Amino acid sequence: MRSRSATSPARPGKSSGTTQHPRIAVVGCGVIGISWTALFLANGCEVSAYDPAPDAAARIRKGIAGIAPRLAAMGYRTASMEKRLRIHADLAQAVREAGIVQENGPERMAFKRMIWREVEKHAAPDALFLSSSSSIKATTQAAGLRNPARMLVGHPFNPPHLIPLVEVAPGRRTSPEAVRAAVEFYRSMGKHPVVLRKEIPGFVANRLQGALLRESVSLVKKGVVTVDELDEIVTHSIGLRWATGGPFVSFHLGGGPAGFQGYLKQFTRALNLLWLLLQVTPVYMTGSVKSMLLGQIAASFGRTPVGELEARRDGDQIAILDALVHSRVRGKGKK
Amino acid sequence: MRSRSATSPARPGKSSGTTQHPRIAVVGCGVIGISWTALFLANGCEVSAYDPAPDAAARIRKGIAGIAPRLAAMGYRTASMEKRLRIHADLAQAVREAGIVQENGPERMAFKRMIWREVEKHAAPDALFLSSSSSIKATTQAAGLRNPARMLVGHPFNPPHLIPLVEVAPGRRTSPEAVRAAVEFYRSMGKHPVVLRKEIPGFVANRLQGALLRESVSLVKKGVVTVDELDEIVTHSIGLRWATGGPFVSFHLGGGPAGFQGYLKQFTRALNLLWLLLQVTPVYMTGSVKSMLLGQIAASFGRTPVGELEARRDGDQIAILDALVHSRVRGKGKK
Repeated sequence: MRSRSATSPARPGKSSGTTQHPRIAVVGCGVIGISWTALFLANGCEVSAYDPAPDAAARIRKGIAGIAPRLAAMGYRTASMEKRLRIHADLAQAVREAGIVQENGPERMAFKRMIWREVEKHAAPDALFLSSSSSIKATTQAAGLRNPARMLVGHPFNPPHLIPLVEVAPGRRTSPEAVRAAVEFYRSMGKHPVVLRKEIPGFVANRLQGALLRESVSLVKKGVVTVDELDEIVTHSIGLRWATGGPFVSFHLGGGPAGFQGYLKQFTRALNLLWLLLQVTPVYMTGSVKSMLLGQIAASFGRTPVGELEARRDGDQIAILDALVHSRVRGKGKK
Repeated sequence: MRSRSATSPARPGKSSGTTQHPRIAVVGCGVIGISWTALFLANGCEVSAYDPAPDAAARIRKGIAGIAPRLAAMGYRTASMEKRLRIHADLAQAVREAGIVQENGPERMAFKRMIWREVEKHAAPDALFLSSSSSIKATTQAAGLRNPARMLVGHPFNPPHLIPLVEVAPGRRTSPEAVRAAVEFYRSMGKHPVVLRKEIPGFVANRLQGALLRESVSLVKKGVVTVDELDEIVTHSIGLRWATGGPFVSFHLGGGPAGFQGYLKQFTRALNLLWLLLQVTPVYMTGSVKSMLLGQIAASFGRTPVGELEARRDGDQIAILDALVHSRVRGKGKK
């Protein structure tokens, strides 16, 4: 399993505390941009953050201050990391000295094309262009660029400073060198990049989430469980399982000594029947479905402030990442 | 979040080392039956295990010996727990003194009905009847019983000695008292029971797994990722996330200060489009899909012996469960 060799945010990248990296321009500083900025700074990088909003500078500094303790809990040295940060309201200034641009603007095609053309005007000719987009393909984004070979998607899973995955999705005209450079860059930031072999709407992780959410909504709609009971079922079974191994290796181990073949022998009929049911059962986020979900949420975990839920989640998340690093180190020691 | 109050196999049930429970009959000792037997013994119960196979006794003892070290790693006292085990090749003897029967036979309707009628002939009139079935409803199983009120499904997630979830699925004629007794019993064994509100084929966790596997197979079929890349994506994103919180609370926290409402505002269109695509795209476990998956597995994690993969998974699983218990204890201390 490749996941054995996982880097993880519980292990800061090699460059922590020193500057081996080119300056990074973070373009667009909402939740994702701020999280990237904090992570890049904690890894010892010089960062130029760009956001056109009038309150951007204060918001960025406040956001970073909120993330710093969590980065510290993961083993990063965060003291004085803000000294490596410059904040710009001017795009040209932000990208001028950057070797890498990580873009996090609004998810609109016209915006992405516009911003990349602007970036290209002012950036160094060999700067790498990375988009955090969760839905717009690199091929589409790079359509107006003189040099689309250096542009690709590097889609993080929220929040980027905590969750290891980055989906690296090159476009039709992205060069293999740019893909390699992106992978190396994300690894050096302590992330776990996976290169997708084809461009597809929603990439991989969000499509999987969407497929599971669809059945979750369907089960709540049918009255089999409430939203909090469904969450309870996931955290006490498949969530735990999929933190240790993905669905394929899990079913491989569920098949007895014959592995996945044994699993298929036992469950092909049941799976095909379920998949037929899923296909013929429409599930959509209609007005009444939304009201039902929001009502149940308001009556359960919605009663706890979002900040408190978030702090618990992040505490649990860091504990799990840490536990996996130690379990895997122990596992290797045994060989 | 209810999951806060989670019991977990990292915390043995209260009765560990003493006998507060009635004798438990485990009917059918394949992988699931043996795992239940080991867990019940480790919790201090007297167990009568029944399996008609000629090699059953040796197989059961070997299985339990294999599980014992993992139970010990979870904090159970496993020394001499086999003294509380009797193995029977005769069903009548196995169930005669039992207060609880946990059934784990083949997944065939005719078999389930037959075995329960046999069990009812020999068991005490107030014994509780629980089936580990992953697919056959209690209503169907209990159809031939004189007293169907005491029969229901208690479906564990494999392996039962490790994964906390038990789906408690009462039938149409199951009494509320039987449901309460089942919930109490599983809790006292360190499990996390969730009572389903309606009977549905596949219950909840396996339907969710099946929905995610469907999209996983579709992505591999389309050539977007290989099976091991897909697993890598899951373990480094949604798996980690869903070990800390289920899909609903996760999207609630992904929606910013407005919670799930904010999430819906941003993503309803994208979700409905994806769900439409899922509905119009047929995915089935055909011969060629099976060959493709098996070929990719053989070239990746299939090269590692199943026993080794299993030991890693269980090591990671115990580490995660332990980390969550400690993270939550810390979280409560802060309040």
